Amino acid sequence: MSVTVVTYDRVMGRWEPNARGRLAQAALALYAAQGFEQTTAAEIARAAGLTERSFFRHFPDKREVLFYGMDSVRDLVVQTIADAASPAGPLEAVAEALAAVGGLLLKTPEIARQRAGVVSANAELRERELVKLAEMATAMAAALRERGVPELVASLAAETGIVVYRVAFARWIAEPGRADLPEILVQTMAELKDMLAGRLASSPALP
Amino acid sequence: MSVTVVTYDRVMGRWEPNARGRLAQAALALYAAQGFEQTTAAEIARAAGLTERSFFRHFPDKREVLFYGMDSVRDLVVQTIADAASPAGPLEAVAEALAAVGGLLLKTPEIARQRAGVVSANAELRERELVKLAEMATAMAAALRERGVPELVASLAAETGIVVYRVAFARWIAEPGRADLPEILVQTMAELKDMLAGRLASSPALP
Repeated sequence: MSVTVVTYDRVMGRWEPNARGRLAQAALALYAAQGFEQTTAAEIARAAGLTERSFFRHFPDKREVLFYGMDSVRDLVVQTIADAASPAGPLEAVAEALAAVGGLLLKTPEIARQRAGVVSANAELRERELVKLAEMATAMAAALRERGVPELVASLAAETGIVVYRVAFARWIAEPGRADLPEILVQTMAELKDMLAGRLASSPALP
Repeated sequence: MSVTVVTYDRVMGRWEPNARGRLAQAALALYAAQGFEQTTAAEIARAAGLTERSFFRHFPDKREVLFYGMDSVRDLVVQTIADAASPAGPLEAVAEALAAVGGLLLKTPEIARQRAGVVSANAELRERELVKLAEMATAMAAALRERGVPELVASLAAETGIVVYRVAFARWIAEPGRADLPEILVQTMAELKDMLAGRLASSPALP
């Protein structure tokens, strides 16, 4: 769910990431190459052509750099739910929002994959990711409530959406080239539907 | 998901919690009465008739006391999945496990409610709870894989189960006396099923 924001520098005629974006890119490259624990804020700043002091002006700590872009993902998700066509059910609105996130990640799939590898290798980062995804679910539930969905129905839809997203993302990482993330999201949602339908009728039997 | 283990003292003829259980009970009572932040390990130990040193022999920190019992809940969940009747689908096995947890919490509903109030009032505790529930999902997924369920299907079933559990638990807390937790779990699972079925057919329309 990492998004690198770059701003076009007309004078230089090339893509020139801003300071936050440069720090985020440098941090990810260093974490991937030498490990999260082994990398210092000073190294990241140096690689981005900045001072350590300016690192801490942009990010409170080394972990937070990896969640750069999460705010704009959350804005996208909330906006997509707010804009969903009005006959959409709560889970359908959530699915639209997740498809939008999937589409966003596909713009820089290598960054998304690299970031996932760094996060999964470190318990502290996995924990921070959980918290961020829980915050995302809370924001989605709030957007659903804005549309009149009752509180706990909204939570159920939003949190189920996050589960589907996490499993679909893991599938996308595990099988590169199999399918694109938005397609895997749709498949995973359908699979959950079948599993739930099976539960109350003829279940797909366990071996 | 707090469970207080008490051991019967035949000599005294009354229920006498063991040291860990006494500390957990004292901690919960103090956190509920005066707040988590305001309570020290020394106070908890004193209330339990123990020394601060023995507190830290039993628990690494003040937070962990609230997750006393989580290990036995995890064992119960894993065992229930392992023992589920063999034609059960993965989500059905998970639902059985959650019903078992619901039944366990109903033995001490006031403790479960009090604990939920303490956890929800503190960001640090909510974070730890998220991590513990993620670990529970991982353990459930592993138990499903043991039964031959493919890895990501197992994760999908286990994590969906945790979402249903959390929403059902929140409902149970919000509406005391409405229904018992195992019943609300079944209702919530059915609601998710309807929501997913609606998504791919005629959705319950948003207002």
